[in-house]
Amino acid sequence: MDSDKSVMSRNKLWLITFLFLTSLVVNLYFYYDNSFALSSPFLRLTWTTKAATEAEKVAAIYCSDHGRAYLDGIPVNGVPICECHNCYSGPTCSVLASNCTADATTGDAMFLEKYWLHHRVNTAMLESGWHRMSYFIGHNFMSDELDRHIRLLHNAVGNAKVDDKFLVFGNGVTQLLNGVIISLSPNVTATPTAPIKKVVAYVPYYPVFKSQTSFFNFKGYEWKGNASDYVNTTNPQDFIELVTSPNNPDGLLRKSIIPGSLAVYDHATYWPHYAPIKYASDEDIMLFALSKYTGHSGSRFGWAFVRDKSVYDKLTTYISTNSEGVSRESQLRTLFIIKEILLQIKLNRGTIGDFNWYGHHTLRARWVQLNRLVAQSTRFSLQEISAEYCNYFQRIRNPSPTYGWLKCEWEEDTDCAAVLSNGKILTQSGVLFEASSRYARLSIIKTQDDFNQLMERLSVLVMAKRSTSGYNYDIINQERSKRPFIYGGDEGSYEST
Amino acid sequence: MDSDKSVMSRNKLWLITFLFLTSLVVNLYFYYDNSFALSSPFLRLTWTTKAATEAEKVAAIYCSDHGRAYLDGIPVNGVPICECHNCYSGPTCSVLASNCTADATTGDAMFLEKYWLHHRVNTAMLESGWHRMSYFIGHNFMSDELDRHIRLLHNAVGNAKVDDKFLVFGNGVTQLLNGVIISLSPNVTATPTAPIKKVVAYVPYYPVFKSQTSFFNFKGYEWKGNASDYVNTTNPQDFIELVTSPNNPDGLLRKSIIPGSLAVYDHATYWPHYAPIKYASDEDIMLFALSKYTGHSGSRFGWAFVRDKSVYDKLTTYISTNSEGVSRESQLRTLFIIKEILLQIKLNRGTIGDFNWYGHHTLRARWVQLNRLVAQSTRFSLQEISAEYCNYFQRIRNPSPTYGWLKCEWEEDTDCAAVLSNGKILTQSGVLFEASSRYARLSIIKTQDDFNQLMERLSVLVMAKRSTSGYNYDIINQERSKRPFIYGGDEGSYEST
Repeated sequence: MDSDKSVMSRNKLWLITFLFLTSLVVNLYFYYDNSFALSSPFLRLTWTTKAATEAEKVAAIYCSDHGRAYLDGIPVNGVPICECHNCYSGPTCSVLASNCTADATTGDAMFLEKYWLHHRVNTAMLESGWHRMSYFIGHNFMSDELDRHIRLLHNAVGNAKVDDKFLVFGNGVTQLLNGVIISLSPNVTATPTAPIKKVVAYVPYYPVFKSQTSFFNFKGYEWKGNASDYVNTTNPQDFIELVTSPNNPDGLLRKSIIPGSLAVYDHATYWPHYAPIKYASDEDIMLFALSKYTGHSGSRFGWAFVRDKSVYDKLTTYISTNSEGVSRESQLRTLFIIKEILLQIKLNRGTIGDFNWYGHHTLRARWVQLNRLVAQSTRFSLQEISAEYCNYFQRIRNPSPTYGWLKCEWEEDTDCAAVLSNGKILTQSGVLFEASSRYARLSIIKTQDDFNQLMERLSVLVMAKRSTSGYNYDIINQERSKRPFIYGGDEGSYEST
Repeated sequence: MDSDKSVMSRNKLWLITFLFLTSLVVNLYFYYDNSFALSSPFLRLTWTTKAATEAEKVAAIYCSDHGRAYLDGIPVNGVPICECHNCYSGPTCSVLASNCTADATTGDAMFLEKYWLHHRVNTAMLESGWHRMSYFIGHNFMSDELDRHIRLLHNAVGNAKVDDKFLVFGNGVTQLLNGVIISLSPNVTATPTAPIKKVVAYVPYYPVFKSQTSFFNFKGYEWKGNASDYVNTTNPQDFIELVTSPNNPDGLLRKSIIPGSLAVYDHATYWPHYAPIKYASDEDIMLFALSKYTGHSGSRFGWAFVRDKSVYDKLTTYISTNSEGVSRESQLRTLFIIKEILLQIKLNRGTIGDFNWYGHHTLRARWVQLNRLVAQSTRFSLQEISAEYCNYFQRIRNPSPTYGWLKCEWEEDTDCAAVLSNGKILTQSGVLFEASSRYARLSIIKTQDDFNQLMERLSVLVMAKRSTSGYNYDIINQERSKRPFIYGGDEGSYEST
């Protein structure tokens, strides 16, 4: 019995020892997981845990891939609601409205969102409650680190020569645009001292040029329309020529057409997603923006490179007088985003991990799809863009523009935007760009849902048979009847407000 | 021997069992610490850990309480440098420059920073890389949740009647100010159609009113100076009267002085820190800002309450045309800040945990100190403000204004700002406010270091004996010689850029 006891005791001992060692291993795992995983064995998260947890919870809210919940969304039972894409509704955005209108109006570069979802670790940003409370940061309300990283970005992409220029941050190109025009114009007091400037742009041009210049109605300038009317002017120095390159709407690279004018280059889409990088632009004034490049339109962050010190001084005065700079939150976030782009260029250049390749690759697929559809009939045509060598990719790059510049080819379709609108596609009419009403601009850079809706509606129009009284509604209605009708679906787009 | 073995075995068993149980307790602790502490037993931090760790590390950088390191600071060996307060330098901001100039110019409400350091858990904000990338949010580029919380805040503090008014966000009051003036002015095209507006303010007024209005030089308005020159005008409807209440510089509550004019109320400091809440302001146009209320000047967030729908429509058009709204990062952060203020009002109203009490309490101590110093001689005087009943605190509230409106009383001290500048204190001269040069504005809301430097320099001037040739430099130099001389100290202020 003693021997039996001894064996039992020994077995117990082994069992307990085994359990102890297992428990010890689990403890070691926990210790490693908690401490070493946080980069330093001595640092434990304390005051940031709540914010981090909250962000992860919100990110985990399920919205069927047709919407998203945000930290500052409207809460229902303490949880932010799903904000659904156009045509979708319901608590998880799972309900697709039948017969709803596609919205291809705005240049909201949401096609890039997936990249940032994927690169979430390096782009998450935790801002403390006391982060940069002061008015003062770096120089002229601008972060020195962000200044440095924007220059690094341009040098890495090769789209602009920036080392010899001054840099000014703005609340988007929108703010900088008016700032630059005012900076180049005389400050008229009582009677005109210097000739006031004539602001022009070559047709077709970005409609905001006209609407903004007219709205702010500064005494030192006036809007004068199409630049091509003034090519042979004897006073080119009195002209401010706004040049969008690649051009909005048609995506073509452009240069100033009034020799000797004060040219302002809006390079918002001069990035590898949208155009071949053919040269490092070296203009006196060049504008860039986060919105079209990274898709962060909501951050309202743009920047200008300026060659001349006196223009720089006036532009910084404008930004100070208008808004005392750009919010430090936007500056911080822009820094995080650009740092990640630079890191990935270093690690994964020319592959899908490289933001520039991702952007081009994604948009290229859409452009091919759109062209294939349009080619199926004689009804519409798109602008032609050739494949060209791109210095960034170091190879021939196929076209992938921001917008389709669609032309209605049938004689009776004189108002192309109306034709599309009747076919339940919202666009911007060519008239807004001072071009013919036979044209309409289709944004192809929005969410995948927006693009799918655009393709679906457009395919109906493309397939419609021509009739003497315009296009054939029967085919359209036949097509619509195939889809289930859902009562109460949202026909409008929350993006059109 | 068998018995001995058995005892040993039993002892071993007990020991191992004890160790096992201990280890199990540690297991349970780790499990609890990791899982339950994050509010949910199923959620573990994953993609946010890096950002949270980075923020905690930066927050832990030691800067001797005379500076601070920030996430986007310039890195040295991968660690952001300390950015030092005025007069301090060195890697940890521990070196105080002798004989350096105090800066009391700007209204940078850094006295509130300590509150946010203390309330760091609820105000930490983790923004994902894909947070609100789109242009579109809530309504007119404005977050619905923030709109709701701003209204809750005013209702809790009782400083404005807001439920019957439209709300517009701007990049600080700076942007809204010009936006409101343009919204109230006619849009002059070729020849004047409506009389252009005359923009005025009662002396002494905030200098930006004049500089900004002149700078933007809109065709529909002109700057006309002192409102008191037009009190008896027969066309009051042609006047836009800018009223700052409490007034900048003197802190007094004000009302429009031109009956029938279009009055715009800048209520940036109508909060319990700075003034008694005597009534819920119910004006047609009221401006507020984060900068003076919470100290987050860098966030560039302000808001306007507007009674009239047509002014609201024009103002939102202005904000869209100028910057397409306010950065969504600023909106998100403002929401976090305001939520914490509201929570603390609920939990700790009228105690040091209540932000409004903290602000008043801290500033009151400075105001008492400044008044005591000034009272020690006949050289200077300060504006007199009486204690008044405050609806928010529900008791008599002692004065604690934003600025000291200092008057030089000695006959020979005609230029007060110069007197102070000679005594190494930077201020804003009364002349900027269209008041007498005998006045200078002292900001007392900056960091504790700034306030201490101001007091130190001012005490030298207060103690100086009057001489026939102005004030007595001997006393000043005697005082200075008491402090150690440090070579290479920064004499300038990084805040004056």
